[in-house]
Amino acid sequence: MSTSTYTVVGMTCGHCVMSVKEEVGEVPGVTGVEVDLDSGRMTVTSDGPLDGSRVRDAVEEAGYQLKG
Amino acid sequence: MSTSTYTVVGMTCGHCVMSVKEEVGEVPGVTGVEVDLDSGRMTVTSDGPLDGSRVRDAVEEAGYQLKG
Repeated sequence: MSTSTYTVVGMTCGHCVMSVKEEVGEVPGVTGVEVDLDSGRMTVTSDGPLDGSRVRDAVEEAGYQLKG
Repeated sequence: MSTSTYTVVGMTCGHCVMSVKEEVGEVPGVTGVEVDLDSGRMTVTSDGPLDGSRVRDAVEEAGYQLKG
């Protein structure tokens, strides 16, 4: 299992958090997604190494951006 | 047909707008709901006189408030 942390930019409310969790949760290998609205901090757990570009694509699909 | 306007407080994004439109759209007699995120202005059209308390309840059900 691996854990990766990111910062998501642009979320304004709980609906935004749900959208991000849904999209990132569909990335292959992802087993859990936690998102803190205030800080934008997102913690993704997976059953193997994560493809960061897939995570980025998922966040953008939801309508937001990864910082950095 | 009648048209009523309200100001909704607390919406932060397009998801919030969708939630309000969904809930208010379920109020009996309502035939259309338009919401402007920036101003909070909501215009409700109905096929008869609207029960304002039902509209208020619907907005609160969505998680927001009517101003005034």
